[in-house]
Amino acid sequence: MTAAYYAAVDWGTTSFRLWIIAEDGTVLAERRSGEGMTTAAKTGFSTVLEAHLAAVAAPTHLPVIICGMAGAKQGWLEAGYLDTPAALSTIAMGAVAVPDVGRDIRILPGLAQRDPQHPDVMRGEETQLLGAAGSLGDGRHLVCMPGTHSKWVRLDGGKVTGFSTFMTGELFDVISRHSILSHSVADAQVFSGDHPSFLAAVTAACAKPALATNLTFGVRAGQLLHGASATDAKATLSGTLIGLEIAGALAAAGTVDSVCLVASGSLGALYHAALASQNLSPRVVDADEAVRAGLSTAAQAIWPL
Amino acid sequence: MTAAYYAAVDWGTTSFRLWIIAEDGTVLAERRSGEGMTTAAKTGFSTVLEAHLAAVAAPTHLPVIICGMAGAKQGWLEAGYLDTPAALSTIAMGAVAVPDVGRDIRILPGLAQRDPQHPDVMRGEETQLLGAAGSLGDGRHLVCMPGTHSKWVRLDGGKVTGFSTFMTGELFDVISRHSILSHSVADAQVFSGDHPSFLAAVTAACAKPALATNLTFGVRAGQLLHGASATDAKATLSGTLIGLEIAGALAAAGTVDSVCLVASGSLGALYHAALASQNLSPRVVDADEAVRAGLSTAAQAIWPL
Repeated sequence: MTAAYYAAVDWGTTSFRLWIIAEDGTVLAERRSGEGMTTAAKTGFSTVLEAHLAAVAAPTHLPVIICGMAGAKQGWLEAGYLDTPAALSTIAMGAVAVPDVGRDIRILPGLAQRDPQHPDVMRGEETQLLGAAGSLGDGRHLVCMPGTHSKWVRLDGGKVTGFSTFMTGELFDVISRHSILSHSVADAQVFSGDHPSFLAAVTAACAKPALATNLTFGVRAGQLLHGASATDAKATLSGTLIGLEIAGALAAAGTVDSVCLVASGSLGALYHAALASQNLSPRVVDADEAVRAGLSTAAQAIWPL
Repeated sequence: MTAAYYAAVDWGTTSFRLWIIAEDGTVLAERRSGEGMTTAAKTGFSTVLEAHLAAVAAPTHLPVIICGMAGAKQGWLEAGYLDTPAALSTIAMGAVAVPDVGRDIRILPGLAQRDPQHPDVMRGEETQLLGAAGSLGDGRHLVCMPGTHSKWVRLDGGKVTGFSTFMTGELFDVISRHSILSHSVADAQVFSGDHPSFLAAVTAACAKPALATNLTFGVRAGQLLHGASATDAKATLSGTLIGLEIAGALAAAGTVDSVCLVASGSLGALYHAALASQNLSPRVVDADEAVRAGLSTAAQAIWPL
């Protein structure tokens, strides 16, 4: 077996993932748990990390590279932000070392856009971006990273020139659970990206984004007047919010050479269908592979072989 | 004292208001309570109504005209909808009589827009509109009725040609209470329509409505990066949602002769400031007076003196 080189950790608000990486890039072991920042802030970050490293019998002095909310103010150690415009190659240099622990642990910084008109921040996605950028080459790319707070990044020749966060996933969740539409979407079935109500809503919101909060009320009115199903309602709400996001991202982006979607699973499939329906054919990069590639790129810069 | 002519009731989801009106239009008595549809559906609508009538010693056979959610499917007696396009003068003819009660009680219908692309409903606002229309005259008017679900109505020569509901008030509430922005707006002070963050957000959302869910995230990012206050954050969230609503209403309206704002209190003041900042100078009609005037117009049509 080839020797362990470093441990790579993606430490989000609600999830923890760790990989032990060999010198030849092989994944020697993997751990996943729900001990995200919120839990670890109580248990102790070092305790959580060492327990996972012990579970895979990691060597005592194996170095660890971490991205995500562990580097937030409420996390383990604040890792600050790189200011845009920022070359992706400088992310590794911004890593902070955790003091007074028995191994070399570095936490990567986030990205900040300090423009007073469009203040924005990310923490974790910059590492996915670093990983995805390896397959994009030069030129102007628009990179979509969907999620609770979707990020759309303008990348030009390996430099982040700007980015925009959209609260799409969180709004979908709070509207579904806490608004009058909770009655409309209760008992909805799972739907996929080819659902007609989803695609119609994406197109309607892209065409007239100003009507977004009217289109969401139409979900309720459509049920009262036309007996639309709960699944139609949920697909319409999802399509409206994703369509609004796409319209906003395009409005902010200017001209680009390509659109790249960094995503995985069912959310990735929904965004792929939504983008394709608007004649944007994104190149797709798996989100899990992207974050691991980004952590590896940073690790190799910090601890060259 | 002039004789009681009828009782007028505005019966919403969470509130009940009753006025005893004399033959000369004088308000002889008024009652307000929190026994809206939700409460009355449990207590009994007749029980609630008769208790209020008894409290003001209303004559035994005084007729009662009602608008609002008491006429919904989950209300006292379903009063259906008038379909758009609809002349306001036909609202009274659509009233349904409550059977098997010891007095003449009529519940006014709502309005429905059955267009499959833009299904919409209102129940209660059509009576405010009937009242406000008396002061508008002929021509094409755009009438804004802000609230939990704001209504914007296109009125042409006394006929409702179409309308659009925006979930502005409810979204403001659920985002403030249940999203990540709840941390940003906690402990915010009351702000008024001349607050610079409010006006800047109205203008930003009107100019680029597609960026609405990005602008709301900017509230959070602005606090992390620039230390914006909780009051700034709340004013920005409010201005963003109201600006998005205004942009959407204008996009749906086409050309109009005037804009009319039917509102009262602090919400009315916020909308007035928002509309004025976009060079729309609305004529203002007090919402309470409008609903009473609408109920009176309907009562006089049903029970002519």
